[in-house]
Amino acid sequence: MGDINRKEDINTAMPDSVGLVERKYITFGTAEDPFILENRQTLPEVTTCYEMYGEMNPSADNVILVTHGLTGSSHAAGKFKPDSKYTGYWESLIGPGKVFDTNRYCVIAPNVLGGCRGTTGPSSINPLTGSPYGLSFPIITIRDMVRVQKRVLEELGVNRLKLVVGGSMGGMQALEWGVIYPDMVDAICPIASAARTSAQCIAFDECMRRAIMLDPKWNKGEYHNGEAPAGGLALARMIGTITYLSDPIMQKMFGRKPAMQESPYEHDLHARFDVERYLHEEGDLLVRRFDANSYLYITRAIDLHDISRGYGSVEKALMRIKAKALLIGIRSDILFYPHHIQEMHRQMLELGIDVSYWEMDSDYGHDAFLVEQEKMIPPLLEFMNRIDC
Amino acid sequence: MGDINRKEDINTAMPDSVGLVERKYITFGTAEDPFILENRQTLPEVTTCYEMYGEMNPSADNVILVTHGLTGSSHAAGKFKPDSKYTGYWESLIGPGKVFDTNRYCVIAPNVLGGCRGTTGPSSINPLTGSPYGLSFPIITIRDMVRVQKRVLEELGVNRLKLVVGGSMGGMQALEWGVIYPDMVDAICPIASAARTSAQCIAFDECMRRAIMLDPKWNKGEYHNGEAPAGGLALARMIGTITYLSDPIMQKMFGRKPAMQESPYEHDLHARFDVERYLHEEGDLLVRRFDANSYLYITRAIDLHDISRGYGSVEKALMRIKAKALLIGIRSDILFYPHHIQEMHRQMLELGIDVSYWEMDSDYGHDAFLVEQEKMIPPLLEFMNRIDC
Repeated sequence: MGDINRKEDINTAMPDSVGLVERKYITFGTAEDPFILENRQTLPEVTTCYEMYGEMNPSADNVILVTHGLTGSSHAAGKFKPDSKYTGYWESLIGPGKVFDTNRYCVIAPNVLGGCRGTTGPSSINPLTGSPYGLSFPIITIRDMVRVQKRVLEELGVNRLKLVVGGSMGGMQALEWGVIYPDMVDAICPIASAARTSAQCIAFDECMRRAIMLDPKWNKGEYHNGEAPAGGLALARMIGTITYLSDPIMQKMFGRKPAMQESPYEHDLHARFDVERYLHEEGDLLVRRFDANSYLYITRAIDLHDISRGYGSVEKALMRIKAKALLIGIRSDILFYPHHIQEMHRQMLELGIDVSYWEMDSDYGHDAFLVEQEKMIPPLLEFMNRIDC
Repeated sequence: MGDINRKEDINTAMPDSVGLVERKYITFGTAEDPFILENRQTLPEVTTCYEMYGEMNPSADNVILVTHGLTGSSHAAGKFKPDSKYTGYWESLIGPGKVFDTNRYCVIAPNVLGGCRGTTGPSSINPLTGSPYGLSFPIITIRDMVRVQKRVLEELGVNRLKLVVGGSMGGMQALEWGVIYPDMVDAICPIASAARTSAQCIAFDECMRRAIMLDPKWNKGEYHNGEAPAGGLALARMIGTITYLSDPIMQKMFGRKPAMQESPYEHDLHARFDVERYLHEEGDLLVRRFDANSYLYITRAIDLHDISRGYGSVEKALMRIKAKALLIGIRSDILFYPHHIQEMHRQMLELGIDVSYWEMDSDYGHDAFLVEQEKMIPPLLEFMNRIDC
């Protein structure tokens, strides 16, 4: 049986899912006509990996752009194989009849510039040298990621977006879309994100980078012919994992449970706690699917996120936004605290922007935009109605 | 001029200080009569470094025990040298006429077991082998630290404590004193501490340990003949430093300031942020004064802190306390959240313990018990009056 039949099978089995999906690629740029980054450095060639769910209408004005977080990918919905255990990360939000309704909208989900999941990044081969970029990859910004996405959309014939929506670093991209291309977007929905990255978030990012660089296998980014710096990247992820949760949820999930029932720590003071086991697992899982240099470049792009850059102030940047906006914060988020998002909401209201703020009541911390995505359906549905009218 | 004259000079120059101080040492234990730890392992010899401020009265019943945090030392007040820039860490609280009044009380401040500031720890020489313990040092607990302190006090002829007071890990010791030696203590004051360590705190501790162990110079703890794992220990401290502050204070102190005025990041996207410079400095400073293996053992002791151990429940442990208690929390503390301390306060009230809770209004996070120690003077003065009457 060919792919088409298998796709029909899975679509029948998952009636409210986009079903089987595949990665697509678009490449642009040449040595003579390179992509120019915000800092004036260049990339001779940029490939973007993306997924597309639902049909684009003839006027190409039914497109929703879904942007992902730090270690995310283009895989926002559906499955790659019928027997896969895993669906895309926003399976509850994207699909036929869902809040991002693929019967009506065409959802495009690109992997970011600097990434390692199909889009050009530091582990890509530099066409000018024939070797992986490593640390010769230029510093990139969230704005560069967005500018690459605009080029990709142009290649697809899309000149206007119905909505840009994403969580965490995906929210930074949504916000930048509203600021730098105000005439191209009807609506933006940045989730668990901010107008600029806080000092505390930069501090965690720097600790994560230092963890990678401390691993001797990192070898100043030149590890492509040897072993990857798994220990360093795993530690970076362990640190990140704490910031994606919250004190209450960690108490609920782990508390002081020992990792193994057969070795209760009352009897063995050296025993590992369950929370440690969890961090180790999270670290090891990331190592299998992510590149250490990408982690360095993308966390730096997050640090550099500041919509005011080039516009003089956050207010002046926000003033450019013409899109309707829904800002979502998470009560227990310790990475993008609600009060920062509330402040941006206040500023946007004062500027007369059509904006609303909704706060998710969740103990899950930053990760709630993934773990408890269903909670966002009511405010998102309301927002979709506001956009459509 | 001898030391005494110099001491008088400095005492004249610092009228409200304990002035010049010196480290003292007490050693106990032999191979035949070793110190037995909570987990039944033994130490053939334990040396404790301590400082003492003020005079012990003949009945030895005016002693205040001051216990320190993770990377602290016995140096709680005064100066080691007249020209030293640095005083002990609680200079505003300990001294003649101060809240811990050395005209009335004898303050004893010991360095903890497992440490590296004069008390036996993993960098000490094992008298049975003639080599540093390294990872052959047994796992220790907060309770072991307290049990060593009790032995030291016995050597000094002290059978009763007026007060045990300390912040962070020092607070854990104060609490354990109240629980395991209820008949020896009149009062306890645990500051920014908890009845047991939270999952989030254990998680941060494990990341810090992994940072040290990731450094190839750590060499499974056998680095005493080579270079110390400075990179790993510095990263551990960087992580810790974030948890000792708070989002609001980091925004105030650093925000998005670039590290160097001559390289504003608007023009150089690769520039280092000031918050990164601060973390690097904090990391490098700790490396000069702390031992990596001690960091591993002491953070593990913090993880294992749980006053319920051996008593069945936190309530049953708290029930043992006969001391008057003042619990202090810090509003912005993200390591020992006020709500955990409030819960302990509620439990203690229900058990009929003479306890009060005071919350410091500070943006400085966990570190406020050091940085804004003056703010604690009014509630501490009130508590001292409550003890005295």
